[in-house]
Amino acid sequence: MTLPYGVQDYLPDECYNKNIAEKRICDTFSAFGYDRIETPALEYSDLYAGIVPVEKMFKLTDNDGRLLVLRPDTTLQVCRMAAKMQFSGVKKFYYTENSFEYLPNVYTSRTREFSQAGVELLGDSGPDGDVEIIILAIEAFLSAGLENFLIEIGDVRFFKCIMRGCGLDEEDVQAMRELIDKKDQLGLEVFLQRKGVDEDLKEKFLILPSLFGKADVLEEARRLCGDDSCAAVLDHLGYINGRLQKLGYGKYISFDLGLLRGLNYYSGLVIKGLAADMGLSVLDGGRYDDIGGLFKEGMSAVGFAIGMKRLLVALDNRRALKKAPPCDYAYSDFGADGAAVSAYIGRLRRDGLRVTDAFAPDRAALKAFAKENGIGKIIAFTADGAETEEVR
Amino acid sequence: MTLPYGVQDYLPDECYNKNIAEKRICDTFSAFGYDRIETPALEYSDLYAGIVPVEKMFKLTDNDGRLLVLRPDTTLQVCRMAAKMQFSGVKKFYYTENSFEYLPNVYTSRTREFSQAGVELLGDSGPDGDVEIIILAIEAFLSAGLENFLIEIGDVRFFKCIMRGCGLDEEDVQAMRELIDKKDQLGLEVFLQRKGVDEDLKEKFLILPSLFGKADVLEEARRLCGDDSCAAVLDHLGYINGRLQKLGYGKYISFDLGLLRGLNYYSGLVIKGLAADMGLSVLDGGRYDDIGGLFKEGMSAVGFAIGMKRLLVALDNRRALKKAPPCDYAYSDFGADGAAVSAYIGRLRRDGLRVTDAFAPDRAALKAFAKENGIGKIIAFTADGAETEEVR
Repeated sequence: MTLPYGVQDYLPDECYNKNIAEKRICDTFSAFGYDRIETPALEYSDLYAGIVPVEKMFKLTDNDGRLLVLRPDTTLQVCRMAAKMQFSGVKKFYYTENSFEYLPNVYTSRTREFSQAGVELLGDSGPDGDVEIIILAIEAFLSAGLENFLIEIGDVRFFKCIMRGCGLDEEDVQAMRELIDKKDQLGLEVFLQRKGVDEDLKEKFLILPSLFGKADVLEEARRLCGDDSCAAVLDHLGYINGRLQKLGYGKYISFDLGLLRGLNYYSGLVIKGLAADMGLSVLDGGRYDDIGGLFKEGMSAVGFAIGMKRLLVALDNRRALKKAPPCDYAYSDFGADGAAVSAYIGRLRRDGLRVTDAFAPDRAALKAFAKENGIGKIIAFTADGAETEEVR
Repeated sequence: MTLPYGVQDYLPDECYNKNIAEKRICDTFSAFGYDRIETPALEYSDLYAGIVPVEKMFKLTDNDGRLLVLRPDTTLQVCRMAAKMQFSGVKKFYYTENSFEYLPNVYTSRTREFSQAGVELLGDSGPDGDVEIIILAIEAFLSAGLENFLIEIGDVRFFKCIMRGCGLDEEDVQAMRELIDKKDQLGLEVFLQRKGVDEDLKEKFLILPSLFGKADVLEEARRLCGDDSCAAVLDHLGYINGRLQKLGYGKYISFDLGLLRGLNYYSGLVIKGLAADMGLSVLDGGRYDDIGGLFKEGMSAVGFAIGMKRLLVALDNRRALKKAPPCDYAYSDFGADGAAVSAYIGRLRRDGLRVTDAFAPDRAALKAFAKENGIGKIIAFTADGAETEEVR
């Protein structure tokens, strides 16, 4: 029996590490005041119309003919949910759920069902909302035991501002966005040449993919555009940098003004969490006020999601994963008094120990079971009482 | 934006109670030596062929033309997984996942996506494996805070034995199974009349729906059939009863020889967990050695799954649900030193408190936020320091 490609079982060891990481991340979210929610895996496709490309979703026809999809992300569900709530200030939610992406066979490094732990900060949180989200991303990584990581910070408004009045149409802008996001400098040059963009503008655009690094790139970017809106975006990123430096998070952040994933989705801040030796991002997020506003007038929103499988790979790369702990005791009942066995075992379990019945026919089988499962101690219950023995 | 019927959001209060119940149930499973695993929501339909009716599954066509389904249950996935493992004794797994059932609109009390916490005990656990599974069901309910419940115990082999040589074909046996399982005495009588079953046999069959109650029904059942296999089944149930009575679990169990759900699925023990004032079962399970054997030669299997939503309803019926606890503090920064705020808040969070930034423009808004969210204390950070105030 094979599994469909792009999905997986989590066997005990991996599942154990996943649960530990989830628990620590969720505890961090909760400490920051976020409340846990759960959403359904099945939604009407309408929810994602115009936001998530239909070809990227698993689709099913319901028995009334309506189109269902498997949730491609949780963010829009949280917006849908929050839109029905009455609140004047901010609302904070977190989740840990699986999302789905329909992918052709050729993709091998991506999965079609992926577990995410994420947060959504809804309502007017101002510039400090962006700061909180970045801090929470750093604290979540740290709580999970990740050390060598970087949160890349960008703002799609800078690119949008630069592009304003450049004369390129929507399709061309999208093509450029992709080239810049991939840091494909050569591809970008060829593209601009072909489109006959004038030299002045071309030079500006060609700098975009290289505008990444520490906070000095923000100053570099200032030279690119004298526009007030551009300056405001850079001021905002400068503010974020100042706050994070002051709070001691400086070493975990860098800036990238060419970070342009999901231009139709994000309305400002974009962040990406990278781990050492990993090509794929472990965390993605940003601000999506326009999406929030679709669900509730003026509802701004900022958040991120951590890819749990990628986080596990990153932890594995630095050997931060453990084996699932075996049971503390294996036992079998060889003609003992049932009530005495139950009382004995019950006491151990109430002390927090994991005690498993091996259902072994004899002591040799009990020992073999303990060895097979890495269990250090056996208890043989007989009519004479309980006999504990260490197994090596 | 509406949700498809039969799926739901878990808002913070309900989600909180669900997570608590899950945590307690999982801790119980773990204490008994069960290891947690996770399985994918997407499987090839082949896995369930001949076992789960295809019309009861959500189906999708993959891009290579193969038929995918949303997992209708986790048990077969665990069998699939275990079949690839090398083990000589028993293997114990638990999970908490959502399963899916394709249902026409008319069903209102059932859900199409349902959360289950369950266990699988694989390999030869003998009669005591049945006992462990029942004890674990009881302990899981108790840990979750359920009190008024009953685990109904049956064994499909008794019905199969009675039916042997009755001359009815497969289809008729299925029809009878359903009538008996529903305790539809009148329907059963009409059915037997129509089929021209002879008086002797008819009388036997008609007693089946009433063979439920405390252990004395096992004695009553003995009068129904002198067959050795029937006697062996009743001996087995008698053994289970003896063990459970001795261990003090007697008050939580009853017997029902008309418990005949999933005749093609279960090969022996069947159990059903009922809560006071609930029509639907909160727990279902039993032994499915034949299914286990499909995946790995001779692999026997016994287990159960708890319906988490139904458990929550049962807990709600007895007012055992709580409100999600609000944050301990809400704060806002009104021109304070950022590092000082961060240090202050960090200390509280490290003490296990939930502290949330209200992002409030002024103290009145901070208070309003605290009130709106039921938070008892606010901290206003200003250039002069931190000022804590109780909010009522």
